[in-house]
Amino acid sequence: MSLVQGTGMKIVALAGGVGGAKLAHGLAQILKPEELTIIVNTGDDFEHYGLYICPDLDTVCYTLAGLANPETGWGRVDESWNAIENASKLGGLDWFRLGDKDLGTHLERTRRLKAGDPLSQITRDFCKAWGIEHTVLPMSDQPVRTMVDTDEGELAFQEYFVHRRCEPKVKGFRFEGADEAEPTKRAKEAIESADAIVICPSNPWVSVDPILAVFSPLFSGEGLGVRSVAISPIIGGETVKGPAAKMYRELGIEPSALAVANHYQGVITHFVMDTVDSQLTESVRGLNMRTLVTNTLMKSHGDRRQLAEAILQFIGSDS
Amino acid sequence: MSLVQGTGMKIVALAGGVGGAKLAHGLAQILKPEELTIIVNTGDDFEHYGLYICPDLDTVCYTLAGLANPETGWGRVDESWNAIENASKLGGLDWFRLGDKDLGTHLERTRRLKAGDPLSQITRDFCKAWGIEHTVLPMSDQPVRTMVDTDEGELAFQEYFVHRRCEPKVKGFRFEGADEAEPTKRAKEAIESADAIVICPSNPWVSVDPILAVFSPLFSGEGLGVRSVAISPIIGGETVKGPAAKMYRELGIEPSALAVANHYQGVITHFVMDTVDSQLTESVRGLNMRTLVTNTLMKSHGDRRQLAEAILQFIGSDS
Repeated sequence: MSLVQGTGMKIVALAGGVGGAKLAHGLAQILKPEELTIIVNTGDDFEHYGLYICPDLDTVCYTLAGLANPETGWGRVDESWNAIENASKLGGLDWFRLGDKDLGTHLERTRRLKAGDPLSQITRDFCKAWGIEHTVLPMSDQPVRTMVDTDEGELAFQEYFVHRRCEPKVKGFRFEGADEAEPTKRAKEAIESADAIVICPSNPWVSVDPILAVFSPLFSGEGLGVRSVAISPIIGGETVKGPAAKMYRELGIEPSALAVANHYQGVITHFVMDTVDSQLTESVRGLNMRTLVTNTLMKSHGDRRQLAEAILQFIGSDS
Repeated sequence: MSLVQGTGMKIVALAGGVGGAKLAHGLAQILKPEELTIIVNTGDDFEHYGLYICPDLDTVCYTLAGLANPETGWGRVDESWNAIENASKLGGLDWFRLGDKDLGTHLERTRRLKAGDPLSQITRDFCKAWGIEHTVLPMSDQPVRTMVDTDEGELAFQEYFVHRRCEPKVKGFRFEGADEAEPTKRAKEAIESADAIVICPSNPWVSVDPILAVFSPLFSGEGLGVRSVAISPIIGGETVKGPAAKMYRELGIEPSALAVANHYQGVITHFVMDTVDSQLTESVRGLNMRTLVTNTLMKSHGDRRQLAEAILQFIGSDS
């Protein structure tokens, strides 16, 4: 059995920013629009200059729409920086680099949120305008805010991540509002009708855990209730991008694919890790997970598609 | 006696947008920083996309700083439009053209207002960053909103002015909040120590009247209490820019320099009108105003300075 090229099976991908966006893009190259729903972390969302900014949602959408900046992994390609440079000349904050085109997204989203429209509806309309055919959903229409407990006290996520460049030492995480936030109706339906859930190679602590925290009421005792696969964002003990490995170390855990598998124990049935970590295969199998070892580094669009194909074949196989 | 080139006399200019900004720039070319305070209308201010926008204040500051777009009379020179074009692609409002550089001003002002800083302090800091040495003050730190009563009902000023392009017929004006709004301390001090007040060739109904409404408690019975001169924005029965002439007609008044002089009767002691209107001189003198007839059309930077010089000599002369 193969899931590749429109088998009618339904996949839900859980994604954070850059790594999640890349795999989501790979999956979207293979699956039909009705076969793929991408649920995106909104724990990183914040207000800046009075604008409502959704970094992960925008990275996923820009990537799917071919508008993303391939150099940075965030923001827009062919971007200009006139607004933030001029705000900065006036004494404004420039630690969060807001490009001019990107600002257009934040301006219109903020306007619509203030008019009372839910984030999921706004995201749907934006996807339509950007020509994105697969379904992209924020994890919730209600605010969830990832708070990072550090040796310098608790910091809002973007304060820790962008402003402080992940320098403070991490002691733990808190997802403010996760208990009250409900998954949107469409996210619920997508999860309930999913044949498999793919946890993208995003940061387990701050990109995936907020989504799982919001969706946990949907899942009865046994993991996610369907086949579910996580792809390790840690390759050879390091992350391609972002602070996941540093976080593991600061929390007293050796960063490795095994540590990621451990993180998701009880949640997933399948695990994918990079060939450089093949020596960990037996240890991961010991966690009662089917294990796939393959190239997980996504340098090109072709890599994204190849990894997506390998994952879909892996979770679609009965063996 | 001449006021020209730093006589130690103090001038307060009351200004709206384009015409006001041009004359303010002319005055600033002649007077020392400590000799000129420009008090700017904020009745046009509004919120758009969650940002706090001060069109007249920005036009005056951009003009003084040499950052204004000479083609449009509003906005910034060498501007880009990426943010608003992208917001517009997402279904956003594009009737108020927000340039990217200009957006930087609105972003930082909005951020500081939300942080609790008064508009006058923000304007002072912005002027410093832009290298503006003369004092520019908003008429008040409290909101005043010019409302235009029309044959299609009452409209907020920018709704009437930009969105509806002044098409609805005007029946009257209301300055919401003017009774409660107080002149800032520095504006009060500038008015109280002024040797003369110059009412720039701005729209009497919607640019100057809001300022006079806020400052009226400062003035005891007799006009502005000092020598005060208004420059007619109406030349040969028409305005250089903006809807003043159209407003006069819709209010049942023949638009002319005489109508402007009438508008300010009891407020000013001196009046300046264009040479094309010289036939109205006797009628204006009949209103008990000293009258100067000169070229008032400001096409070049030289014109601005020449008009400013003529005005200062006119109000400085004892004859």
